[in-house]
Amino acid sequence: MNKTVKRVAYSEIKNVLSKILENYGFNSERADILAGIFADNNLYGKDSHGLNRFPVFINSIEKELVDVNAVPEKVKKFQAFEQWDGKLGAGPLNAVICADRTMALADENGIGCLALRNTNHWMRGGTYGWRAAERGYFFICWSNTTPNMPAWGSDEPRLGNNPLIIAIPKKNGPVVLDMAMSQYSYGSLEVHSKNNEDLSFEGGYDEKGKLTTNPDDILTTQRTLPAGLWKGAGLALVLDLMAAFLSDGKSSKAIGDQQDEYGLSQVFIAIKSDVVGSTDALNKIVEEIISDYHQSKKVEDNDIYYPGERSMNAFKDRKENGIPVNISFWNEIKEMAPGTS
Amino acid sequence: MNKTVKRVAYSEIKNVLSKILENYGFNSERADILAGIFADNNLYGKDSHGLNRFPVFINSIEKELVDVNAVPEKVKKFQAFEQWDGKLGAGPLNAVICADRTMALADENGIGCLALRNTNHWMRGGTYGWRAAERGYFFICWSNTTPNMPAWGSDEPRLGNNPLIIAIPKKNGPVVLDMAMSQYSYGSLEVHSKNNEDLSFEGGYDEKGKLTTNPDDILTTQRTLPAGLWKGAGLALVLDLMAAFLSDGKSSKAIGDQQDEYGLSQVFIAIKSDVVGSTDALNKIVEEIISDYHQSKKVEDNDIYYPGERSMNAFKDRKENGIPVNISFWNEIKEMAPGTS
Repeated sequence: MNKTVKRVAYSEIKNVLSKILENYGFNSERADILAGIFADNNLYGKDSHGLNRFPVFINSIEKELVDVNAVPEKVKKFQAFEQWDGKLGAGPLNAVICADRTMALADENGIGCLALRNTNHWMRGGTYGWRAAERGYFFICWSNTTPNMPAWGSDEPRLGNNPLIIAIPKKNGPVVLDMAMSQYSYGSLEVHSKNNEDLSFEGGYDEKGKLTTNPDDILTTQRTLPAGLWKGAGLALVLDLMAAFLSDGKSSKAIGDQQDEYGLSQVFIAIKSDVVGSTDALNKIVEEIISDYHQSKKVEDNDIYYPGERSMNAFKDRKENGIPVNISFWNEIKEMAPGTS
Repeated sequence: MNKTVKRVAYSEIKNVLSKILENYGFNSERADILAGIFADNNLYGKDSHGLNRFPVFINSIEKELVDVNAVPEKVKKFQAFEQWDGKLGAGPLNAVICADRTMALADENGIGCLALRNTNHWMRGGTYGWRAAERGYFFICWSNTTPNMPAWGSDEPRLGNNPLIIAIPKKNGPVVLDMAMSQYSYGSLEVHSKNNEDLSFEGGYDEKGKLTTNPDDILTTQRTLPAGLWKGAGLALVLDLMAAFLSDGKSSKAIGDQQDEYGLSQVFIAIKSDVVGSTDALNKIVEEIISDYHQSKKVEDNDIYYPGERSMNAFKDRKENGIPVNISFWNEIKEMAPGTS
C-alpha cells in the first residue's frame, strides 16, 4: 500500500467527524447522523463525496451559509405532494428528513412527492436513494446546483450539473444510479486532479475550446461536457425547471446570482414496492434482469457493473479492512477535533 | 425545394391514415386518434416517428402483434398508483388512455403514477408529454424496448434504449425532453440512413468495434453508443427494472426472447401544477430560466434550443405550409387507402 495512505476504521472516522460537528454547534443526535453520512460515503467507495468534502462543509458553516440549528418545515400539502422549506440547514440532514417524509407519503398514497427549497448541498445524492431502496421503496431524487455546465452549443456555464438519483430495492444491496448531468461530477474531477490522474474519457473543454481528459483544465474553464451531449444538457434544464417550481425555490440561475452556492432546490419521489407486488416478486424480476445484464459479452477486459455494484464491493472491503485515507489529510481533520488525536 | 419532396396538408395526411386504419379494423373514433398521433409527429417535425413508421405499424397489425380491438384495463390500484394491462393493443392508443388516467390520478392526489404492461410501441413518447404539459401537468414517462444497446463495456445489445420523456408546462408551447438512452434513437438512425447522411457525432460502433458516424454500420451491429457512456447505460437499466416490476410486465430481456418486439412495459407519472402554484407563478419561473438559457454565449454558429423548441418551430411552419413528404413514399401510402388518391 502507498505509504501516504492508511486504513482507518469506519467508527473512528465517524467519531472524529461527529465531535467536530458538535464543536460547530450541532446537537449530538444531528452531529451523529451527519458524521454517519460523510463516513458512509467513504465506506461505500465514494471518496469524492466523503471526507474530502468535509472541510468544504465546515467552511460553509464558518461562512454562515449553513445554519446548524435549522430544521426543515412543511409549507404546503395536497394529498401525496408536499412542499418544504429547508431554512438553509445542513443539506444532508434536510435531505434525510425529507427522504423519510417522502417514504411516509408513499406509505399512505402508493407514491409520494416532496419538493424542498432553501436547502444546501446534500453531498452524495446516492445516500438517500440507498436509504429508501433498503427500506423497500423505488426512489427518484434530484438537486439543482450553481451553474457549472454550459448549454449544448455554448461555452458559458448557465446550467447546473444537477445530479439525478434512481434507486431500486434489491436483495444484497440495491441498484442505485447516481449521476451528475456532466460526464464527470466536480467531486470526481477534483479527486482525479488530486491524484494527478487523467480522466478515462473526455470530460470537458480546455481554454482553447478543445475536448480534454485533463481534470485541471476543466476545473479552470468550468466547461464540463454534458453526459450525452445535448441530452444531458436538456435533462439538466428540465430537472432545474421542476425543482424550482415544485419547491417554489431558487433556480440554478438564481443560485448563480449569489456569491456562494446555497439555497438549493430538490425533489424526492418514492413508490412503495409492496403496494405493487411482493418482495419475492420484486427479487425475482430484479434477479432476472441483473443476471442477464451480467452475462453481457465483455469487450476486452472491461468489467460490467450495475449502478451501485462497485459501492457494494467497496462496502464489503472497507467494512472489514477500514477506509483508506491520506495520512496527512486525516491528521489535519483530527486536529479539528481536540482530544481525539 | 427538392423535386422528390412536396408539402401535404396535415388534414389530408390525417384523413388518409385514418381511412387505412379503419380498413384494418379500428373503429372510426380510434382510427382518428391514432391517425392524429402519426400526423402530429410529422407536424411537430419528428419525421423519424411519423409517416415513416406507419408501414411498420400496419405490418405489426398484419403479423397480429397488435390487437386493433384491445382496450387497456386496470388490474391493481392503491390510492395514487395504478397498474394496467394493455392487452397488446395499439401502443399509441394505450398510451393516450393511460396518460389521461395518470393525469386524473394527479387531480385527486397531487401526483399520480400508472404502470402499463402488455402494450406496444408508442411511436413518439413526446406525444404524451406534450399532451400532459399542455393541460398543466409536469409529466414523466418511459417505455422499455427490445434489447438494442449494449451495457457499458460490452458489445452485445442486452439493454433497451428505453426512451424517457420529461415535460414541463410553458406558455406558447411546453418544454419536452424526449430522449432515447442511445445517443441516437433507431428512428433517427433510419432517417439519416434513408437520407444518406452521416451523424453529426459518433453514435455507435461498426463491425470492427470502432466508433462511427455511419448510421448503416450502427444499424447493422446494433451496437449503439449509450448517451453519456456508462450513464445512459445505467439509466436504461434502472428504467427497465422499474417498468417491469411496477407493471408486472415484461423486461427488455423477456421482450428480446420473443421473435418480435411486442408486449412492452411503460410508466407514467404526472404532477398537477396548480396544486403547487398558480399558472402565473409557473410562467414566471419558466420564463426566468428559459430566458437565461437563451442568453447563453454561443460557440461558433450553434443555435441554442430548449428541448421541444425546434418542434414548436416545425409546428408553426408545417401548420401553415404543410408537411414535407417524399412524393413516391406518399403515393405508396395513399395506395393503401382506396378512394383517396
